Amino acid sequence: MTDPFFQPTSGMDLPRFAGIATFMRLPYVPFDHPRIGDVQIGLFGLPFDGGTSNRPGPRHGPRQMRDLSTMIRAEHPVTRLRPFEAARCADLGDAAPNPVEVNDTLDRFTAFARRLKSQGIRPLAAGGDHLCTLPMLRGIAAEAPLGLVHFDSHTDLFPAYFGGKTLTHGNPFRAAVDEGLLDPKRMIQIGIRGTQYDSADRDFAKAHGIRIVTIEEMFARGIPDVMAEARDIVGTRPTYMSYDIDFVDPSVAPGTGTPEWGGPNAFQAMQVVRECAGMNIAGGDLVEVSPPVDPTGGTAWLAVSLMFEMLCVMVTAL
Amino acid sequence: MTDPFFQPTSGMDLPRFAGIATFMRLPYVPFDHPRIGDVQIGLFGLPFDGGTSNRPGPRHGPRQMRDLSTMIRAEHPVTRLRPFEAARCADLGDAAPNPVEVNDTLDRFTAFARRLKSQGIRPLAAGGDHLCTLPMLRGIAAEAPLGLVHFDSHTDLFPAYFGGKTLTHGNPFRAAVDEGLLDPKRMIQIGIRGTQYDSADRDFAKAHGIRIVTIEEMFARGIPDVMAEARDIVGTRPTYMSYDIDFVDPSVAPGTGTPEWGGPNAFQAMQVVRECAGMNIAGGDLVEVSPPVDPTGGTAWLAVSLMFEMLCVMVTAL
Amino acid sequence: MTDPFFQPTSGMDLPRFAGIATFMRLPYVPFDHPRIGDVQIGLFGLPFDGGTSNRPGPRHGPRQMRDLSTMIRAEHPVTRLRPFEAARCADLGDAAPNPVEVNDTLDRFTAFARRLKSQGIRPLAAGGDHLCTLPMLRGIAAEAPLGLVHFDSHTDLFPAYFGGKTLTHGNPFRAAVDEGLLDPKRMIQIGIRGTQYDSADRDFAKAHGIRIVTIEEMFARGIPDVMAEARDIVGTRPTYMSYDIDFVDPSVAPGTGTPEWGGPNAFQAMQVVRECAGMNIAGGDLVEVSPPVDPTGGTAWLAVSLMFEMLCVMVTAL
Amino acid sequence: MTDPFFQPTSGMDLPRFAGIATFMRLPYVPFDHPRIGDVQIGLFGLPFDGGTSNRPGPRHGPRQMRDLSTMIRAEHPVTRLRPFEAARCADLGDAAPNPVEVNDTLDRFTAFARRLKSQGIRPLAAGGDHLCTLPMLRGIAAEAPLGLVHFDSHTDLFPAYFGGKTLTHGNPFRAAVDEGLLDPKRMIQIGIRGTQYDSADRDFAKAHGIRIVTIEEMFARGIPDVMAEARDIVGTRPTYMSYDIDFVDPSVAPGTGTPEWGGPNAFQAMQVVRECAGMNIAGGDLVEVSPPVDPTGGTAWLAVSLMFEMLCVMVTAL
Amino acid sequence: MTDPFFQPTSGMDLPRFAGIATFMRLPYVPFDHPRIGDVQIGLFGLPFDGGTSNRPGPRHGPRQMRDLSTMIRAEHPVTRLRPFEAARCADLGDAAPNPVEVNDTLDRFTAFARRLKSQGIRPLAAGGDHLCTLPMLRGIAAEAPLGLVHFDSHTDLFPAYFGGKTLTHGNPFRAAVDEGLLDPKRMIQIGIRGTQYDSADRDFAKAHGIRIVTIEEMFARGIPDVMAEARDIVGTRPTYMSYDIDFVDPSVAPGTGTPEWGGPNAFQAMQVVRECAGMNIAGGDLVEVSPPVDPTGGTAWLAVSLMFEMLCVMVTAL
Amino acid sequence: MTDPFFQPTSGMDLPRFAGIATFMRLPYVPFDHPRIGDVQIGLFGLPFDGGTSNRPGPRHGPRQMRDLSTMIRAEHPVTRLRPFEAARCADLGDAAPNPVEVNDTLDRFTAFARRLKSQGIRPLAAGGDHLCTLPMLRGIAAEAPLGLVHFDSHTDLFPAYFGGKTLTHGNPFRAAVDEGLLDPKRMIQIGIRGTQYDSADRDFAKAHGIRIVTIEEMFARGIPDVMAEARDIVGTRPTYMSYDIDFVDPSVAPGTGTPEWGGPNAFQAMQVVRECAGMNIAGGDLVEVSPPVDPTGGTAWLAVSLMFEMLCVMVTAL
Repeated sequence: MTDPFFQPTSGMDLPRFAGIATFMRLPYVPFDHPRIGDVQIGLFGLPFDGGTSNRPGPRHGPRQMRDLSTMIRAEHPVTRLRPFEAARCADLGDAAPNPVEVNDTLDRFTAFARRLKSQGIRPLAAGGDHLCTLPMLRGIAAEAPLGLVHFDSHTDLFPAYFGGKTLTHGNPFRAAVDEGLLDPKRMIQIGIRGTQYDSADRDFAKAHGIRIVTIEEMFARGIPDVMAEARDIVGTRPTYMSYDIDFVDPSVAPGTGTPEWGGPNAFQAMQVVRECAGMNIAGGDLVEVSPPVDPTGGTAWLAVSLMFEMLCVMVTAL
Repeated sequence: MTDPFFQPTSGMDLPRFAGIATFMRLPYVPFDHPRIGDVQIGLFGLPFDGGTSNRPGPRHGPRQMRDLSTMIRAEHPVTRLRPFEAARCADLGDAAPNPVEVNDTLDRFTAFARRLKSQGIRPLAAGGDHLCTLPMLRGIAAEAPLGLVHFDSHTDLFPAYFGGKTLTHGNPFRAAVDEGLLDPKRMIQIGIRGTQYDSADRDFAKAHGIRIVTIEEMFARGIPDVMAEARDIVGTRPTYMSYDIDFVDPSVAPGTGTPEWGGPNAFQAMQVVRECAGMNIAGGDLVEVSPPVDPTGGTAWLAVSLMFEMLCVMVTAL
Repeated sequence: MTDPFFQPTSGMDLPRFAGIATFMRLPYVPFDHPRIGDVQIGLFGLPFDGGTSNRPGPRHGPRQMRDLSTMIRAEHPVTRLRPFEAARCADLGDAAPNPVEVNDTLDRFTAFARRLKSQGIRPLAAGGDHLCTLPMLRGIAAEAPLGLVHFDSHTDLFPAYFGGKTLTHGNPFRAAVDEGLLDPKRMIQIGIRGTQYDSADRDFAKAHGIRIVTIEEMFARGIPDVMAEARDIVGTRPTYMSYDIDFVDPSVAPGTGTPEWGGPNAFQAMQVVRECAGMNIAGGDLVEVSPPVDPTGGTAWLAVSLMFEMLCVMVTAL
Repeated sequence: MTDPFFQPTSGMDLPRFAGIATFMRLPYVPFDHPRIGDVQIGLFGLPFDGGTSNRPGPRHGPRQMRDLSTMIRAEHPVTRLRPFEAARCADLGDAAPNPVEVNDTLDRFTAFARRLKSQGIRPLAAGGDHLCTLPMLRGIAAEAPLGLVHFDSHTDLFPAYFGGKTLTHGNPFRAAVDEGLLDPKRMIQIGIRGTQYDSADRDFAKAHGIRIVTIEEMFARGIPDVMAEARDIVGTRPTYMSYDIDFVDPSVAPGTGTPEWGGPNAFQAMQVVRECAGMNIAGGDLVEVSPPVDPTGGTAWLAVSLMFEMLCVMVTAL
Repeated sequence: MTDPFFQPTSGMDLPRFAGIATFMRLPYVPFDHPRIGDVQIGLFGLPFDGGTSNRPGPRHGPRQMRDLSTMIRAEHPVTRLRPFEAARCADLGDAAPNPVEVNDTLDRFTAFARRLKSQGIRPLAAGGDHLCTLPMLRGIAAEAPLGLVHFDSHTDLFPAYFGGKTLTHGNPFRAAVDEGLLDPKRMIQIGIRGTQYDSADRDFAKAHGIRIVTIEEMFARGIPDVMAEARDIVGTRPTYMSYDIDFVDPSVAPGTGTPEWGGPNAFQAMQVVRECAGMNIAGGDLVEVSPPVDPTGGTAWLAVSLMFEMLCVMVTAL
Repeated sequence: MTDPFFQPTSGMDLPRFAGIATFMRLPYVPFDHPRIGDVQIGLFGLPFDGGTSNRPGPRHGPRQMRDLSTMIRAEHPVTRLRPFEAARCADLGDAAPNPVEVNDTLDRFTAFARRLKSQGIRPLAAGGDHLCTLPMLRGIAAEAPLGLVHFDSHTDLFPAYFGGKTLTHGNPFRAAVDEGLLDPKRMIQIGIRGTQYDSADRDFAKAHGIRIVTIEEMFARGIPDVMAEARDIVGTRPTYMSYDIDFVDPSVAPGTGTPEWGGPNAFQAMQVVRECAGMNIAGGDLVEVSPPVDPTGGTAWLAVSLMFEMLCVMVTAL
């Protein structure tokens, strides 16, 4: 039985441009809400871009993504899945960052993720820059390392730079491996491309057995073949899905800070998520959406369309 | 004693760019909320532009105004009034329009306003086009006509056109006078300018005793003098304040559908509201904010800054 | 013999950025013009978006499309057809809408289309929202239902909503079938995708034998195969071509009110029209171009490029 | 008696966003039109920016100004003058430039202006860059030098540069004086400001007796006083009015290639034209509107509002 | 004698849109350049916005300001001062920030400022957010506290927040007073406005004798009177000038992160700097220019126009 | 041994958004610089669009491309080539145009190219419009005609128009063949599409043996097959590579003056250059980037990404 409380406001009752914007028009259920205990999948924002080495902006991502997400309807066009009926989903609000201190923010976000974990809520986060993934993993993977399916144009496996003491959005997955939050043998990174400073990331991947699929390989083999390998690598144990919007070609998703040309189109961008069907997704995020460099809001609209795809995969894993 | 429930989220706790956007970060209190009975001033949206004869867009006004309104802080810079401590304010959400039928929408909005009236909540609405003012007046002025202080570049006193059966945003105040919702002797319209089709509006004003202050007169006499007259005209009985953002010069507020050059600057735009101190404001609205023609969001930011000024006037009238 | 009167102004004589903008620089021939009787194909605008349930704007489509259309030259790059020499084409101006009343506008547009029909002019219309297709069909298909080749991300086969009395841009083809203006057995809808509220449209299609080709099927089979089926379905009898710009991927055509990700690219967007060669196109439209959400004007430029493709197909059917 | 042929399309009949855009919705009357002989004031475009030394774009000015001009209505808000009833006005289309050759374009524009002169049509031109003023003067002032009232942030009295053989938009008034087209004793330039290379322009002005009013002087004395002097200087003999949109502050008119901060606001921008009442305006232009650097179209909307003011002054001089 | 090496590239030689962009087309003279010892006034960037509590972006300010600054010419329009002939000015490049660590960046910028101090170069910096002022003061005022003339809509005298350990752009002047870098008795802050959280800043000002001039006072008294007071307060001893672009009204300078309505227009924005003539300006900065929220680049163009005014004041103090 | 002087500034030392923007952060080495004699490949701008027949803007291309180019890193993602270590590259600044005279500018640019030739520096130019290619060829191909690999949507093989005396951006390759600068038998033009005035270009190509590959042929055969033919045609003798950004689909590269729909995506846009590996590239250019019509800067970012690909091909030919 679907729970009426957890159903999104219908566009038939209130037009999609109207009303206070929550993720996919779901009810707002903060931690002190009486129904928090019933939430199975929590959508929330991580409005922080203090780990950004180039163009800032993703701190504004969650709000714009909420705005655009009111155009999402109830049913998946291909699978006909109706995720809001299949699982109790809610908008949990945003985790509060400290905009001027990276480490304090990481601690705040980690605490937020731990609280989700303790409530049995699977997270589906909207970034924020890619460093925001690290506290999510710290919060939910502390007991046992997770697998990772990672869509991105960058590996984010670099060592810290700019003096080296503080992490940036180029380092989260290296840190997560180092901290034992991810099992490198169950990690796959897809779509990698763009000019590079050096090979520090590839060396790290090779040393730990992390699988990197460049964009050239992805296009040469085709998405179904690559994603079959991805399903093999992550297997049936709990896996985290991290989707950096710069995986997608900048012509499709200009609203991001470090775009790299030559990525997938929108159909392919959704296809890779659909091909994750069957994975046991313990949590996920969609990061690096930067409204200030996206004059039409299209990037946020794509991002929430992808979050809907991710949600449909997560629901089937419950 | 200030009620903690009705205090806006502080930027010290959650940065201003973070969180679900409600008007001025106030709590969301829809009609079915347990605290609805305690609300004194209700902020809400009227997302409708079906009465627009030229460029549409104000249906998107309330959401963008909510977004920008999170930059409003607690205290007025001149009077030091802290309105959220002085009165219990809340975001009531949006009244639901029918985007394809003007009359159905007017009925829906009227019912919404009646409900406010019956709850003893004073409305402060965010439009929507200027036709949205009419159902507000139908809802709260049915028993006794109100005075009107009206900032605009247009009188909106024209008869219906395009075939004549349906009202547009050029007609609300003529209709309101015809329906006995406004007392024409207690009406003042300030800032009028721009080319015209004919003199139908001025003839109507003259016939009913409505005071029109053109922009030339306003600049020649100065705002304090004009506003002293305005206070005389509306007196101490209940008065409605309607602020069309196109009162302000298009260089300041480009985000509107029918801009007319030669209006006040931002300081003057706020000054006229401050000069309403002492009026008995029974309700108000800020209309015609059109996000699609405002690339920076500045118009919405001005609009919510003006709503804060209006709120401060309303609070002192409680 | 080509008629000099009906030739577009050449960019050699007047640069393409100069001059009053008519569609494709064709002469302006309103109904009271002495040459109206010689026009074979009439290009005109339907500047109305009162049937729009989400983001408005297409009322501005015709003017921006005229502006961009001055970049169209005389000859098709592949077929070498010179359509303005092959048929007498003209810009008929815009049909006059009532911007605040849907039904009045439908009547006005129907009368406009009937007048074309009576003059023997085949219509090629620039919307306006998709509801504008209905009066075109009412005007030219009243005697005998037409076939339909329809490119779109939505079926527009839904029942009326928002209270149910007035049609929106989600209903035109359902209404047209119900009114006997289209022969459902000769209808094909291509490119359908995006999340849905429910299956009301698919149920209607199934009940009436309307062929729906989802975007997944289109990409899997390839455009030539799908379009061969389309030619079979519509056959050689008169057919209407309706092209909603949201058929195209939003990365290519962001300027529309209800975009859905995962559509064709620009090459494919033109290819589907080229593959209509041989159809007996009695009329067509290109709708849902919304300038306010298209910062570069690119969507209008694509739209008029597609209208040129449509025109080349129409010309060969004369 | 007003001539119905020369009346603009009313917004009551065709909404202002609809229809083919001509200047102020006037009829299009090219030189080969049967009514050309009746035109008293001709509005037309000079789409050329080949004399631009900094940022190009004004070649696109006329088309965007036509688009925005459909928001102009019939009656002046202060004087109640109805110019389209007081004089027979028409849109003459654009003079054809050669976009890659300055001198050829100047010859073409001069021929266009001569033709107007020979037809007894007073020109009101939309630029184009400021060099376009020179061929207007060559066309209409060849027999007798005109006075000049000139609103601008630059004097445009510099000698040619970049090698020195070809004129730019920094030279038209020096050339016009040198060619005997303007009477320097009857010239006034108002609003001059901005950093400078050298004093070549001021030296030329001093040598010829041209009156320069800097923006500091204008604000210190007030517009009425300055304009009284302007009326004295130009007297009652035929005078040309040239309005460079960069006279206005860039916050009001960002859409221009060489903006200088510290100019008048929109009210003042219109006021200076209104204060020209009584001058014998033989022709005028509004130049340097550059759509590519004006994201909202506001500059063009101001420009056509100013052209309406200019037209009202011209009409009273007939 | 003017030194040819230190003269900007003339627009007569290389058009202003051409060439590598340095500040005002000055030569690039980094610390390792042989002419560094001859520089009197150094223009440079502080590309950091890690202290920003609301909307980021000023890290991009210096580059955009360089780009727009190529429109600055050689001579002041009112005083006729030619600053690049009066003093040896150069572009020193940018001080290198650590974009993810506030304190490390403050140390780097302080070292940069110390190096200037030791070289005898007076700094004129382009921010960056307002926190960047603090390391400038640490670098040049360590020996003796400076006076301050400060144009802003905010006092930036608040205590640290978001947990309290790290400074933000709301704290620099409080920190500078606490650290003895500024003499509070010789400080004046002009233009203060906007809603507030609390009175912590005013309390601090009162306790230390810092003069705050609200925007209401500034407009009531007039700029000449206020600036006469400013000259009295700072006296003839060395003074720092800090100009936050949000001093200016957001209609004029939308490109900033925390705009407040009701500020001065562009003429007044320049006027306040001109009225500083005679002050002994030991250094200055122009901060908070945020390109991502400024679609036209106009804010940067105003900012560099103001830097030119500041430079003219600084030059006369040498 | 790599020369430290010629290494780009690392993003590790100075973040990519910081510092004065040179091409790819290379050192600025004008002709009077002591290291000019060591430069092997010179990057520079040709800021001129006076040959543009439609929408101007490419004069601003070099500066914006420099700005975006600071996001280029050291190493090619596929070949792992590090071009700045493999060859001594530098930014030479811009060649100075005369913005108001086409022929004078062509002479200036030709002299610039000759100087490069005489210094033994291979040019990699950033346009400017496509007419800028002609003086490059005049400068470096005067002694012996070059082969040409040309990516574009237009052949640019038309005769002069607009009166016929001056060249435009539609004529450079016809002129180059006529002047003996290109060997038509070693010319290939790839990606041709869009409506046409007439067949003058194809007739010229046929008469001279120039190979034209339409976009339809390119997509039908596939890029590897087409590029194999290209390598055959140009052979191993010196060849010029000219890349018009309008080769790429306008959805990817909107920032150009004459876009034509249906071109390659970003991956393919880079792929065609990579497939030029092995060609003996004597020089190249990337032209027609028009910042005023590119609101995100994405087109310039793609353009410099393509210049990096071109550079990697050029380096291997040294």
